[in-house]
Amino acid sequence: MNYTHPEDNEEYQGLKIQRAMDKAPTIRNPYFKGLKKRPEYSIDDYVKGILDGNMAILAQAVTLVESSVEEHYHKAQQVIERCLPYSGKSLRLGITGVPGAGKSTFIENLGMDIVGQGKKLAVLAIDPSSEKSKGSILGDKTRMEQLSVHKNAFIRPSPSAGSLGGVARKTRETIILCEAAGFDVVFVETVGVGQSETAVHSMVDFFLLIQLAGTGDELQGIKRGIMEMADGIVINKADGTNIQKANLAKTHFQNALHLFPMPESGWAPQVLTCSAFHHLNLDKVWQMIIDYAAFTKNNGYFAEKRLSQSKYWMYETIEQQLKHNFYNNPLIEQQLQQIETDLMHNRITPFIAANNLFDIYKKSF
Amino acid sequence: MNYTHPEDNEEYQGLKIQRAMDKAPTIRNPYFKGLKKRPEYSIDDYVKGILDGNMAILAQAVTLVESSVEEHYHKAQQVIERCLPYSGKSLRLGITGVPGAGKSTFIENLGMDIVGQGKKLAVLAIDPSSEKSKGSILGDKTRMEQLSVHKNAFIRPSPSAGSLGGVARKTRETIILCEAAGFDVVFVETVGVGQSETAVHSMVDFFLLIQLAGTGDELQGIKRGIMEMADGIVINKADGTNIQKANLAKTHFQNALHLFPMPESGWAPQVLTCSAFHHLNLDKVWQMIIDYAAFTKNNGYFAEKRLSQSKYWMYETIEQQLKHNFYNNPLIEQQLQQIETDLMHNRITPFIAANNLFDIYKKSF
Repeated sequence: MNYTHPEDNEEYQGLKIQRAMDKAPTIRNPYFKGLKKRPEYSIDDYVKGILDGNMAILAQAVTLVESSVEEHYHKAQQVIERCLPYSGKSLRLGITGVPGAGKSTFIENLGMDIVGQGKKLAVLAIDPSSEKSKGSILGDKTRMEQLSVHKNAFIRPSPSAGSLGGVARKTRETIILCEAAGFDVVFVETVGVGQSETAVHSMVDFFLLIQLAGTGDELQGIKRGIMEMADGIVINKADGTNIQKANLAKTHFQNALHLFPMPESGWAPQVLTCSAFHHLNLDKVWQMIIDYAAFTKNNGYFAEKRLSQSKYWMYETIEQQLKHNFYNNPLIEQQLQQIETDLMHNRITPFIAANNLFDIYKKSF
Repeated sequence: MNYTHPEDNEEYQGLKIQRAMDKAPTIRNPYFKGLKKRPEYSIDDYVKGILDGNMAILAQAVTLVESSVEEHYHKAQQVIERCLPYSGKSLRLGITGVPGAGKSTFIENLGMDIVGQGKKLAVLAIDPSSEKSKGSILGDKTRMEQLSVHKNAFIRPSPSAGSLGGVARKTRETIILCEAAGFDVVFVETVGVGQSETAVHSMVDFFLLIQLAGTGDELQGIKRGIMEMADGIVINKADGTNIQKANLAKTHFQNALHLFPMPESGWAPQVLTCSAFHHLNLDKVWQMIIDYAAFTKNNGYFAEKRLSQSKYWMYETIEQQLKHNFYNNPLIEQQLQQIETDLMHNRITPFIAANNLFDIYKKSF
């Protein structure tokens, strides 16, 4: 039963890294170039370039969106605002799964199918933890060797700066730019272990969970609640002696999903098996996503969900700003620890503690 | 297969209501009396009465907690603060399930077992929707005929005023008062269809989900995410020809729970069947709860969870106040609708919309 999947093979991993490193100096990398020499494009230049589908200008506009420089922020907002009327036409797919579930191979091979049909595909990511590793550009190129050099694909690693809220905002704005640049499909990838799934779920049309067959150990990493967000679950690495286990896992997940109420979309989440590595059943996965889009466009949920996502992000942003303003107030910073200590020693109720802090805050205006 | 459970029998329901109405005039109801003639107790009177375990004074103190009169609020807060050092010693059990799952009979019969052991039991509820029906006191007395007249039981319907946050605060403060009055066990009941489960989950030690056997229809009402909060699931009405279905449901839930990661508590949620009506297996359900408490007290999670619940409520209250202040600002109230319309017509991004509103808010200070 100790079947080692070829993808998990060290030699294979090493080979992939080696190949990518060989290629690295020749890879066109406008993101990196942008950091070295800031281009002097005007807002008009950006908008025109994006609407023309110019990939280099799109990449530089995304760099502007991700910049923490105040001036860039304002410029970026104007570019986005002008692109807004041309946005909204792509199919947005969220992809999550624990490390090792095979997300990269899945994206690489499903992505190649999509661009093979003449469609333009953008692959974005949300990984607030990537700040530590500082830019996983090489990583992303390594992970998606063929896709990363395809003319109809735009791959962008997770913005690395700041809070989840900040990262999510940048990714959502990048979706707008990609759509204005004529991209038909947008993937937003995330790792199913943190809080970023809610963020991704709130910006995509279809949320796909990639799982592995297994009796539990592999699933321990996935956060509670994620399964219930999924519009579809794919059991990956269903090949070789794994097939039987994958089918069993499929049945388990199907039974579990029956215990949940029907989602608002009216779409009963499906469970499929596939082998991204061996390119098995990826067509069925894609068909499921297409079916979902047709189904929800027909019943009105597709448009309704996008509107409620816009509202969600507005209210979410307001709340983040309110909290940021509160917790960064010098008087609050000064008092919070003492009040928390009182709370921990049961000297004060949570409600009195909150009221006391709020009184301090109000007096500071 | 059309087994009608005796509890769902109309005649039985009618009988219960009739019996309660017959009793109503003679039921000692300090809550109702309190509303008619506000008692002139001092803070000292309240605290002494509560610590002496005087049920009438406890009931009046809870009425004070629930009052929307500013003066009562301040008095209540002082009573609570003085009771705080005597609180924390009960076992707090959250109970949820859709209407019809048999929660009342479950609470009545398990409750009678608990008071039968000489323990003191408080039964509270959170149901923000109860505002419409204005006081379900008779309802609660009807629902728990024997328990409601037992000297060691204190039954209190959901506070009916205000937002979920307000209702939750009042219930949490009532728990403190009940504990100071020497209650050993506190039940907090909620209906598993709204947002109140998260609130209940955040104030109890053990969260119990009551389900019915069935192929789906009965489960449609339960909110997504609730199953993952449960420390235990009970399939109720497992009697007569329902037994087989209940056992099947038990297996389904057990399999589903295996797909979730182990909760932080280190306790693997259990699934049991019972018939509250026929008093079958209620001892096993109670044993599970006792086992959980012993297990989590031993690994430190019990105390840790209570501390994190205190923190949760403090931060939750702060956020509610921040939002309340923002959305009740006259300038925001005036602008919000227009900005939301712009958002819905894709004329503005959610982030710009939020920033614009926040700028308006800041200028108003």
